[in-house]
Amino acid sequence: MKIETKIAHFQKPLYLESGRILEPWHIAYETYGELNRDKSNVILITHALSGSHHAAGRYPGDRKPGWWDGLIGDGKGIDTRKYFVICTNVIGSCFGSISPISPIYPGSSQEYRLKFPVITIKDIVKAQKILLDSLGIRRVRAVIGGSMGGMQALRFGVDFPNFADILIPIATTYQTRPYVIAINKAMSEAIKGDPRFKGGYYDKEQVKKEGFPGLATARMIGYLNYLSPATFDRKFGRNYVKTDGMFQLWGRFQVESYLEYNGNNFPKWFDPLSYIYLLKAISLFDIGRGYSSLLEAFSQIRSPLYLISFTGDTLFFPEEMRQIKKYMDIVGGKCRLFEIESDYGHDSFLVEISKFDYLISEILEKGLEKRK
Amino acid sequence: MKIETKIAHFQKPLYLESGRILEPWHIAYETYGELNRDKSNVILITHALSGSHHAAGRYPGDRKPGWWDGLIGDGKGIDTRKYFVICTNVIGSCFGSISPISPIYPGSSQEYRLKFPVITIKDIVKAQKILLDSLGIRRVRAVIGGSMGGMQALRFGVDFPNFADILIPIATTYQTRPYVIAINKAMSEAIKGDPRFKGGYYDKEQVKKEGFPGLATARMIGYLNYLSPATFDRKFGRNYVKTDGMFQLWGRFQVESYLEYNGNNFPKWFDPLSYIYLLKAISLFDIGRGYSSLLEAFSQIRSPLYLISFTGDTLFFPEEMRQIKKYMDIVGGKCRLFEIESDYGHDSFLVEISKFDYLISEILEKGLEKRK
Repeated sequence: MKIETKIAHFQKPLYLESGRILEPWHIAYETYGELNRDKSNVILITHALSGSHHAAGRYPGDRKPGWWDGLIGDGKGIDTRKYFVICTNVIGSCFGSISPISPIYPGSSQEYRLKFPVITIKDIVKAQKILLDSLGIRRVRAVIGGSMGGMQALRFGVDFPNFADILIPIATTYQTRPYVIAINKAMSEAIKGDPRFKGGYYDKEQVKKEGFPGLATARMIGYLNYLSPATFDRKFGRNYVKTDGMFQLWGRFQVESYLEYNGNNFPKWFDPLSYIYLLKAISLFDIGRGYSSLLEAFSQIRSPLYLISFTGDTLFFPEEMRQIKKYMDIVGGKCRLFEIESDYGHDSFLVEISKFDYLISEILEKGLEKRK
Repeated sequence: MKIETKIAHFQKPLYLESGRILEPWHIAYETYGELNRDKSNVILITHALSGSHHAAGRYPGDRKPGWWDGLIGDGKGIDTRKYFVICTNVIGSCFGSISPISPIYPGSSQEYRLKFPVITIKDIVKAQKILLDSLGIRRVRAVIGGSMGGMQALRFGVDFPNFADILIPIATTYQTRPYVIAINKAMSEAIKGDPRFKGGYYDKEQVKKEGFPGLATARMIGYLNYLSPATFDRKFGRNYVKTDGMFQLWGRFQVESYLEYNGNNFPKWFDPLSYIYLLKAISLFDIGRGYSSLLEAFSQIRSPLYLISFTGDTLFFPEEMRQIKKYMDIVGGKCRLFEIESDYGHDSFLVEISKFDYLISEILEKGLEKRK
């Protein structure tokens, strides 16, 4: 599988939903496989909150491959012998695209920080569309993504009805529920309330070296809904760390040690401000904003919609995906819903790949046949 | 209804499960109604994490009455014309009982802080038992409590089999699941990770006056499971604060404003260290500790057990209460389970009182008849 990582720079302004403008701006992306002559084999992968454009393959020396490596590759569910796969790092994220820690002007030592504009899923999608246009790709076979990535897939369907042959939003919603907004708020406050945040002007290197407990706590809060209660049971039980005292105040159950490890590691590879900005984008997500109703929004969608949800998802409930199906039925859109049995929790879309990779492969094949 | 608030002081050592000793120690408690001549009309109420001995009635000038005022009072579910109700502040909590912010020696300016011993639900129950003994109360009609209060009710049944005629644990579990331990961990880390915590030696007055974002965040994390997703929908929807900008980074949905308000208020009335110690007690809770099996523990219980759970409880799931019923059935114990339809969430035991107050009243009457 051929992998390429690039950053595309744009001098033309990016007009945002907020009315603000990013100019210039840049976006990082990665591609897998080869673009065919008529550019008709493109699949766009959209990532989740802490994801990146590095969806598959391995960089030299890396312990772990990209976040959807189980799904994307030669002979895999998304077969890179057949498809040219693109994954971008969403704007606002900290893996190479323009974000709160980018310089305000190229070469400037002054970074946006809190002056970075609030971005939305609509903006994220728009930026990706401009990138693909610049690559001469006007249409893709499919947009596929889970969680925040699924929001992007839906948004593509509504905002650019002729862009994708097929949309596959996974483990997502059409409108972020107040429950999830509340989770995002707790995470955001954990970061902002940490004095190390310094009103957004924290020292980036210091955060990586010395840690950032507020961001670590935020990550721990996330895990409470990424995994399901049943997964916590299976993975950890009530096992205690062998060398910790049961009646020591800081003695730990194994589940606590797991959260500590993953929480404390998080600031080493994710930026606090990017996290806050992307949480905001997720909270603001409402496929109906700008339309007189949700139905009007859904009626924009021209591509067949294949929804995949997981029964044990406690972040974006299967009911929410069923609701999308209902709306699509009402507006007469093509839509199928696959509800996958899994009690793993929200992270099923990352972990239980073997339960839906064959499905994606089938949808892609079938979708191709039906293409006009 | 006659209300009395007192603090009982004990010079004799309190031997804790950890092997540590509290000496001297004290416990705050409140009583409602009047003790009859043969002391046979006592009901013990056990409180939850952020509760106190102030379960009912109103102190002069108070805006809100005690936390279970809807249930306890003249003519209410727990009728104070008939019963003498006692509620203690658990040891470790910050409303007048011995806790991490108590002086190590009476009159000393040195407080326990992190030198306070880890306490368990077993210790909490033991202290209450000693208090009741000192009041000449050897047996009670019932122990009734929700959440952490339900753990205490169960613990009373196992540790003091001849103490209560009836046990009514509500919205609780027999063994804290790793999922809840994970929630507790995130809350505990939010507090500990805040530099204002100062290794436990924070300035108490400063916390009250200037706030303590770590504890505020912990409280917000709590709300994510005290209310259900459905309650978040009903209470807030996706309404935005009218005067906040949609595309302002710190602009707020109403649910965020609610969390902020309740989170930021929390440090004004609850102590950070008490919170950490009580979270630890909840995480450590396992009715089977000290027994060779859960069944052996449950077989200690002699009192009829009336369990009340709520279908929408996402903290202590109804399944966990059903499991208690199964264990009791296996060991041949008297047990009934009432599963109350409510999608309010864990806080149903505080909020949906009209759905179970009549039940408690009936159980108390029936229990009285059956008393040998």
